[in-house]
Amino acid sequence: MALKPNIIVAQSGGPTAVINSSVCGVIQQAIGSGKINRVFGANNGILGVLTEDLFDISAESSETIDALKRTPAAAIGSCRYKLKSPDESKADYNRIIEVFKAHDIHYFFYAGGNDSMDTADKVNNLASDMGYELVCIGVPKTIDNDLACTDHCPGYGSVAKYVAASAMNAGRDNEALYTTDTCTILEAMGRNAGWIAAAAGLAHRCRQDAPHLIYLPEIAFSFEKFIADVKEVYSQLGRVFIVAAEGLKDQNGQYITAETGSLGTDSFGHAQLGGVSEILKLVIEKEVGIKTRFNKLGTNQRSAMHFASLTDVNEAYMCGKTAFKAAMEGQNGKMVTLIRQDSPEYNCTTGLANLSDVANGEKKLPAEFINPAGNGVTDAMLDYVRPLVQGQAPFDIGPDGLPVYMRFERVAIQKKLAKYI
Amino acid sequence: MALKPNIIVAQSGGPTAVINSSVCGVIQQAIGSGKINRVFGANNGILGVLTEDLFDISAESSETIDALKRTPAAAIGSCRYKLKSPDESKADYNRIIEVFKAHDIHYFFYAGGNDSMDTADKVNNLASDMGYELVCIGVPKTIDNDLACTDHCPGYGSVAKYVAASAMNAGRDNEALYTTDTCTILEAMGRNAGWIAAAAGLAHRCRQDAPHLIYLPEIAFSFEKFIADVKEVYSQLGRVFIVAAEGLKDQNGQYITAETGSLGTDSFGHAQLGGVSEILKLVIEKEVGIKTRFNKLGTNQRSAMHFASLTDVNEAYMCGKTAFKAAMEGQNGKMVTLIRQDSPEYNCTTGLANLSDVANGEKKLPAEFINPAGNGVTDAMLDYVRPLVQGQAPFDIGPDGLPVYMRFERVAIQKKLAKYI
Repeated sequence: MALKPNIIVAQSGGPTAVINSSVCGVIQQAIGSGKINRVFGANNGILGVLTEDLFDISAESSETIDALKRTPAAAIGSCRYKLKSPDESKADYNRIIEVFKAHDIHYFFYAGGNDSMDTADKVNNLASDMGYELVCIGVPKTIDNDLACTDHCPGYGSVAKYVAASAMNAGRDNEALYTTDTCTILEAMGRNAGWIAAAAGLAHRCRQDAPHLIYLPEIAFSFEKFIADVKEVYSQLGRVFIVAAEGLKDQNGQYITAETGSLGTDSFGHAQLGGVSEILKLVIEKEVGIKTRFNKLGTNQRSAMHFASLTDVNEAYMCGKTAFKAAMEGQNGKMVTLIRQDSPEYNCTTGLANLSDVANGEKKLPAEFINPAGNGVTDAMLDYVRPLVQGQAPFDIGPDGLPVYMRFERVAIQKKLAKYI
Repeated sequence: MALKPNIIVAQSGGPTAVINSSVCGVIQQAIGSGKINRVFGANNGILGVLTEDLFDISAESSETIDALKRTPAAAIGSCRYKLKSPDESKADYNRIIEVFKAHDIHYFFYAGGNDSMDTADKVNNLASDMGYELVCIGVPKTIDNDLACTDHCPGYGSVAKYVAASAMNAGRDNEALYTTDTCTILEAMGRNAGWIAAAAGLAHRCRQDAPHLIYLPEIAFSFEKFIADVKEVYSQLGRVFIVAAEGLKDQNGQYITAETGSLGTDSFGHAQLGGVSEILKLVIEKEVGIKTRFNKLGTNQRSAMHFASLTDVNEAYMCGKTAFKAAMEGQNGKMVTLIRQDSPEYNCTTGLANLSDVANGEKKLPAEFINPAGNGVTDAMLDYVRPLVQGQAPFDIGPDGLPVYMRFERVAIQKKLAKYI
């Protein structure tokens, strides 16, 4: 290893409002340490490593790097490229190490979810087998909040805040115009875990407040039960506001949506297309007979910098700094975790978990966070999420009153190897 | 007329982030004038008048009334109840005047769009025919920005700001993850006029910025042209971000969506359901072959108090105050308008237009605001909208970091008449 090695930072999977804050923490801590030579970024995550498509983050201005904390999505670039299992083929892993070697990279910081932690772990193990000095540290990132070994995940607090406020806003809309637009469905992300949909429960401060019903992937979805729930709320309030996770599944574990769904053409007279919202709307209009509309926030929820949580931004930044510090202290093969202290005031510190433990886990909503009827959340859930949405994250505002986000200059690193893919 | 008459305030149609600000302007100006007895609110708009379902706004605390400025949707309640034409039946109009008479109401302030202005005009004319002293003043309100006789409409600036920021945020998401989520569609409200979709053009500050294509109801939609546009952007940037108004129509004026659409089951192998986004997604995936996702903001765009325009809130409030002042000055049968001054700095004052002129007009995007290719907007459009999105409207924030909105106590006014509907 050179006296001052290079480090590489990469982002993976779905963007969040704060993944750039984590990356900022790594970069600023690294540059400030005086212990490294250059910070490389991998264009579009691990794809950029495989294709040797790197750029020099240390050549960026300090203002640009600092503005990462106020820019959503994934400024280095992300991807969903799935590496083959090393048992199947070691080619991708060998290539990654070859690229690291060619550019004197001995530290790999990877911000992502459990697939990314799995990748980082495997790269780390192969480097060790090959005798290449490499330190791999994971930085947690996912709006889904489903990573094991950590109290919560950077990215979740911001999506929770945005979705809760969206439920409040659209809830007031539903309340104002219920005489015609009687039912509103807000579709939240979450294929396997209902953390995001559950956070919308924060909006329900009193009986009138939206959401009145929340449906989660953790609970097997029953159309009969659903119809009864909607009728019940409608009879009480004259209107209904529903939050539905996109990944609702029936008792056989099948998505209730179109392509794979348990409702076919015959049941409702149409071929079913689209997602959860579309099918729930159809069911309500047919079975309850009230006009229903749906809002599908889509990628807007995971990139909503204009209403991100300051707590989330700060914790994401702290995770990034901790990742670099841990590497300097000789840690390897770890992911930074968030530990909620057992104190009256919310207080969160960082820890470390083995990459392999994170890679193989998935944290769903525990039973005590879901109400007995399976159509809402408990106070325990709200107590869990409330501290995570605190504070308004700042963002730069242009003379036109709209957000201004940074972009890297992207000074390319000259390629040294043959084309791989 | 009693020495100090009562006034009534009602809201109509789709909620906005600032219709409550307008109502606040009327109420505060009325109470401050010392010239009126009580301010009544009509629960759920004109429906509340017809059913004599009124409440006493003057009994509310001044804090509650002031918090209207920081609460979205329509706090008095709204509706889409369509009055019959007086030529068909005068029953509804007679009832309205009967209710006004029973409660000594001589001023009617109606916040709404062109249908509401039509209603107010007809009520006014019938009152005059019947010799009942009534002053009807309209307060402009519509996110659609399609009212005649006014430079723009309260409600539009806020939805423009939210949709532009949403395009920025989701645009960065698309840019970060384009290697898999290559195309994003953001669906904006707007059945007949493309003002909201056009405002998203503010997000496009440089070539890379979303949106790359904007489709408006004013331009006949061609699938062939659309596919060519998407292919062109994809070839240049490797990704595509589209803003589509919900009301896109083909050259025959038919919505391109499912139920009435020009594309049937055969063309794409599925029965077409849902809105514009769903069909555009299908077309892109089939014809361009890139993965496409869509975000449908729905009612979240018209109620987004957490990112409303301060300019919009202030102008809405000014419209409300002007409405009351105009009534006191002897005006009748008018709607308050916004007049953009011909000055280097943006400066907006109020005027008055005849209700009948507003009722019969509809303002679509002028040709000079749409680019020659019909898939984007011009600088003239951006110059028009930019001043309207300036400033961040304040809202109350609770100890949990989330918005807090007001609700009226709703002290009911005792009914004096027989049931009508």
